[in-house]
Amino acid sequence: MSIKVFGHKSPDTDSTGSPLIWAWYLSEIKGTPAEAKLLGEPNTEAAFMLERWNLDKPEIIDGVAADEPVVIVDTNNPAELPDNINDADIQAIIDHHKLVGGLETKGPIDITIRPLACTATIMVDLMGADIAKMPEAIKGAALSCILSDTLEFRSPTTTAHDRAVAETLAANLGIDIPAYAAEMFAAKSDVSAFSDAELLRMDSKEYGVGDTKFRVSVLETTSPATVLDRKASLMEAMTTVAAEDGVDQVLLFVVDILNEESTLLVPNDLVKDVAAKSFDVTAEGDTVVLPGVVSRKKQIIPNLKV
Amino acid sequence: MSIKVFGHKSPDTDSTGSPLIWAWYLSEIKGTPAEAKLLGEPNTEAAFMLERWNLDKPEIIDGVAADEPVVIVDTNNPAELPDNINDADIQAIIDHHKLVGGLETKGPIDITIRPLACTATIMVDLMGADIAKMPEAIKGAALSCILSDTLEFRSPTTTAHDRAVAETLAANLGIDIPAYAAEMFAAKSDVSAFSDAELLRMDSKEYGVGDTKFRVSVLETTSPATVLDRKASLMEAMTTVAAEDGVDQVLLFVVDILNEESTLLVPNDLVKDVAAKSFDVTAEGDTVVLPGVVSRKKQIIPNLKV
Repeated sequence: MSIKVFGHKSPDTDSTGSPLIWAWYLSEIKGTPAEAKLLGEPNTEAAFMLERWNLDKPEIIDGVAADEPVVIVDTNNPAELPDNINDADIQAIIDHHKLVGGLETKGPIDITIRPLACTATIMVDLMGADIAKMPEAIKGAALSCILSDTLEFRSPTTTAHDRAVAETLAANLGIDIPAYAAEMFAAKSDVSAFSDAELLRMDSKEYGVGDTKFRVSVLETTSPATVLDRKASLMEAMTTVAAEDGVDQVLLFVVDILNEESTLLVPNDLVKDVAAKSFDVTAEGDTVVLPGVVSRKKQIIPNLKV
Repeated sequence: MSIKVFGHKSPDTDSTGSPLIWAWYLSEIKGTPAEAKLLGEPNTEAAFMLERWNLDKPEIIDGVAADEPVVIVDTNNPAELPDNINDADIQAIIDHHKLVGGLETKGPIDITIRPLACTATIMVDLMGADIAKMPEAIKGAALSCILSDTLEFRSPTTTAHDRAVAETLAANLGIDIPAYAAEMFAAKSDVSAFSDAELLRMDSKEYGVGDTKFRVSVLETTSPATVLDRKASLMEAMTTVAAEDGVDQVLLFVVDILNEESTLLVPNDLVKDVAAKSFDVTAEGDTVVLPGVVSRKKQIIPNLKV
């Protein structure tokens, strides 16, 4: 039976590209048939990557069967995976997030988690000399994953190693990183096709502070004005999304990739308070700018207070 | 602050040797001060290893402080670690057991779990070319860990890679594996100093089948008669140990390393039933022999039925 390789339920570039990279490696190098799958529709940047490198969009699956062989990449959080994930035959996990707890395996398996910016960087390391055998499309996917997760090396999650791997791949492919990253970020910034609720859920993680449950959403864009033009309806949609998803409040951080700052939407006094206590800023109107804040993992979640 | 490196609460050879190996690597090669610690008294085989290779017995600690930097080896099971382990600053996990779930980290860290027989084998892999810098004592510890966890390559958990690593280490040290393993197993078989309750808890894991909670204990020995001579008092002690530890039944498997079989003590009809359903054997008296069964991980736990 072919192994299904997939990332989390909100496929960004790393969660779309990494399954393709690892499925290639398992199938073509290790001789173990494997297929990349998706647990949701890829975002616009991930879709751009697929088209740019002539990669077929992986099939979207809505669950796993009991005892089905799977490899999980770019997450170790059961909340971001099918409900019955622990019934599957989990064969490996490759990830760069903190250990959340909750995944269980039936026997000892291969687990590699590293404090790097991107799953694809870890995969390149695990492949060793076999990276020379990567076709252009797979190299292009790996490069795209690293540029996406590091925001072209601007994010504080970036390590020297992520950067070195990306620069080697780009040199090898003859890709100019600034020009290519600009194309990727433009694709990510095209959010016109999405409803307000879709935008609030697109790149979002639930996180509790004391008794308060947040949905912490970020939108990374080179065109923050495009999103902020919709702020009134986005703030309205927050109430519905929070109720439907069983959280107390949606927090939306619009990350301006090029200027390395975020704008937090401030629909009410709770969020105004969060802004003051977490980031030491006073929101005068319905938005507040957080200079330098671009990473949910390193800068938003660790500082969140109510 | 020096990093504390430790294994589980019932230190066998791998859980005593692996912390010494990794603390050496962190301190001497990576320039990160680290110290091996123990969460309990090492067993007699582990004590033999320490003496044979002139290694100082690591300090036994009874807990961790909040935010203290630690590296966990040879387990990922919170039940086998200090109660407040998730309050520590877990910096890495190196293990070869199934993922149990329950450990959580504050940020992304280094986690390496591999389906190999022994933690020390994984460490040798992670060190790469630096293994050439290992002093004799550290090589001796690594060799001991692999011979112990594989029962000198007899256990079905043994992989070709574990064996190759052990043989390289032995050749390098000028050690004759059969002679050295015999010394180790003789040390492990010397259980005269232990009370019955201590023997039942020495190498033991809790495991539930349906609503029935077992303490599944193994005693690996080259001299099963020494243990079986005590079977009457061991069976008596089972009742007390089960009550004190909140389980329904202690199962004791006396593993005959050299003859590659186990003897299960059968104190009552529950265990007689377990023997029949799990291993398809009929216990006529108060013991039953299970030919070929030497591994709790591969042969006992996966077959256990009530």
